[in-house]
Amino acid sequence: MWARANGIALGGLSIFALLGEAAAQASKPASTPSLSSREIQMVAPALENYTQGLLLGDVWARPDLSPRDRSIVTLAVLIARNEPLELPFYLNRALDNGVTPGEISEIITHLAFYAGWPNAMAAVSATRPVFAERKITSKQLPLAKVQSLPLDKQADDKRAKSVDENFGKVAPGVVQYTTDALFRDLWLRPGLAPRDRSMVTVSALVASGQVAQIPYHLNRAMDSGLTETQASEMLTQLAFYAGWPNVFSAMPVFKDIFAKRTAGATGK
Amino acid sequence: MWARANGIALGGLSIFALLGEAAAQASKPASTPSLSSREIQMVAPALENYTQGLLLGDVWARPDLSPRDRSIVTLAVLIARNEPLELPFYLNRALDNGVTPGEISEIITHLAFYAGWPNAMAAVSATRPVFAERKITSKQLPLAKVQSLPLDKQADDKRAKSVDENFGKVAPGVVQYTTDALFRDLWLRPGLAPRDRSMVTVSALVASGQVAQIPYHLNRAMDSGLTETQASEMLTQLAFYAGWPNVFSAMPVFKDIFAKRTAGATGK
Amino acid sequence: MWARANGIALGGLSIFALLGEAAAQASKPASTPSLSSREIQMVAPALENYTQGLLLGDVWARPDLSPRDRSIVTLAVLIARNEPLELPFYLNRALDNGVTPGEISEIITHLAFYAGWPNAMAAVSATRPVFAERKITSKQLPLAKVQSLPLDKQADDKRAKSVDENFGKVAPGVVQYTTDALFRDLWLRPGLAPRDRSMVTVSALVASGQVAQIPYHLNRAMDSGLTETQASEMLTQLAFYAGWPNVFSAMPVFKDIFAKRTAGATGK
Repeated sequence: MWARANGIALGGLSIFALLGEAAAQASKPASTPSLSSREIQMVAPALENYTQGLLLGDVWARPDLSPRDRSIVTLAVLIARNEPLELPFYLNRALDNGVTPGEISEIITHLAFYAGWPNAMAAVSATRPVFAERKITSKQLPLAKVQSLPLDKQADDKRAKSVDENFGKVAPGVVQYTTDALFRDLWLRPGLAPRDRSMVTVSALVASGQVAQIPYHLNRAMDSGLTETQASEMLTQLAFYAGWPNVFSAMPVFKDIFAKRTAGATGK
Repeated sequence: MWARANGIALGGLSIFALLGEAAAQASKPASTPSLSSREIQMVAPALENYTQGLLLGDVWARPDLSPRDRSIVTLAVLIARNEPLELPFYLNRALDNGVTPGEISEIITHLAFYAGWPNAMAAVSATRPVFAERKITSKQLPLAKVQSLPLDKQADDKRAKSVDENFGKVAPGVVQYTTDALFRDLWLRPGLAPRDRSMVTVSALVASGQVAQIPYHLNRAMDSGLTETQASEMLTQLAFYAGWPNVFSAMPVFKDIFAKRTAGATGK
Repeated sequence: MWARANGIALGGLSIFALLGEAAAQASKPASTPSLSSREIQMVAPALENYTQGLLLGDVWARPDLSPRDRSIVTLAVLIARNEPLELPFYLNRALDNGVTPGEISEIITHLAFYAGWPNAMAAVSATRPVFAERKITSKQLPLAKVQSLPLDKQADDKRAKSVDENFGKVAPGVVQYTTDALFRDLWLRPGLAPRDRSMVTVSALVASGQVAQIPYHLNRAMDSGLTETQASEMLTQLAFYAGWPNVFSAMPVFKDIFAKRTAGATGK
């Protein structure tokens, strides 16, 4: 039976305190970080200082990659690495920086394939209250069936042939879905520009330490309009959000791709 | 003091809403996914379509790996990658597909060693309410002390000697526990068939991008009865649950092992 | 309207049960593991047995690495791998074993750079209630601005020159922050001894499977006083907390560093 006058003490912890904290969390708009400055200072004042001054104040303001693009890179990292705590804050930052709800929807769908279905579902779970709070409805989101972008059939036949030669007997299911689900379906969805879709993919690869697939996807990104300066600056953003070691593993690969593209362009 | 008539407004958020949502989540049977179709559609209609049609409808129904085996692979991925959100749904799917509670118990214990103690503990935390809901008691679970499977002493002496020669001075503690705790204890627990125990291990390795240990464990799996067709089809399941990049890193290793086993069998 | 007499039934789940469980969790002191022995036994009795006997009873008591150092290694793993469930338990263990609140603060800040900002924020979130429960205030924590340790300018100029030659054009932002934020700021913060700061870094690298950066950081750790015996025993601790595969990937690297250091010392 409830003690009506003063709240209920359960195991020494007042029900007011319990519900109060939960309600405080629940009533905090998702645009605020999950942790306030004051909360961070109670554990790591230096980290709070680096966050405000270095990261949000300095890195995000660097000119060579737009805030919109930085937002896309950051979201890709958080989703690929299953780090949903700060996803609401960065989703709101992305929306404020011009990433559309439809693009966010496509980013999550894309990472179901590139970071695994469970990470995409965790991202959906974190995104739902943000969309609800901003009154974003499914009307603003791309449908399941869309008018595909045109396929560069010659390039994709070449890719498919190479994958099939290498792995057609080893993993026929993977090879089939790589063509049918990925390159002739997912990659042709128009709700995320090819350059941006590639930027999401490269970010997820760097953030997961999966360097072997970076060359193909970095080239694809740069073929779709990502400049070398922007790709370099992605690495700065990634160092802070995916950690220095992942970026130091990725840098030699980026270096090699840049060199090959420059040599290719100048005919050396 | 409670406002008895209408619930309490805390920071603008009604206590009814707060408790209602928590109760709705808590009262949802664990056999339902953590996210409903409707919830996913509010963020990514395309992802919901891929989930129903492609993943659950198509991939899970592919013939070359049984639903029971697919469940084991999927559980291993979720636990190894610390993705507990959907674990209840896939635990129930596994139990419905014929994975026993005792086998689930052994899978979690196995992954304490192969994916680290904290991930196993997170899995225990997610599994508890599922077992409770299905009235599974510890009577159905393997004891700590069990009658071991027989040890292939010749093969394991060879393994132990190789590890000791390589690392006996570098990491004596690791070498000791590798023999005493892993290969002469954990691997001989009968509650998970050797083929299945190896399938869990291979899945965790692919899902964590740890290709270096795949050869030993894939060979062990196939020596224990995993067929090449089944191993190939594990890669299809893993592409969706662990992400395409991890599978593309694993495919050359699987290819090499298949080739060596075929050459060995045909005497080339 | 509240049913005052008997609690409220919501969707079949009594509000008493709902609040009771939440309150039970909330009122449990953070020094207790997130899962009780009884709870683990309801899912995996064998795992509970391994936890008590093998891990807590045997591994933690091994002589070649102190409980304090084991705590530092374990915290680094939990934070780097985004495994906050058991962080309160191990934070308390660390504090009981002589790791100071200030050192914990520095560990989290350090891992913002080495394991990515989001993992550090998740660690802050898990640490806050532990500090509050133990009445640790920010007065005990290092300030943002501190008196730096002396810089070994010759060694760091050499490092900076090498990184700049390799990557100065590829990723100028990363190179700049590597010097300005990491090696001439973070690494010179006195609140964590250089040996310990390196131990945290090496642990995070092993736990994330990032072997390429281990040589530099293991050498730095051993130059700062970590002995070969202690480094070996870190691997034992890491096998249990980061999983066997990560340690088997790291062992060849440790072996190579040990051999080079021995050869260097003996002039071979």
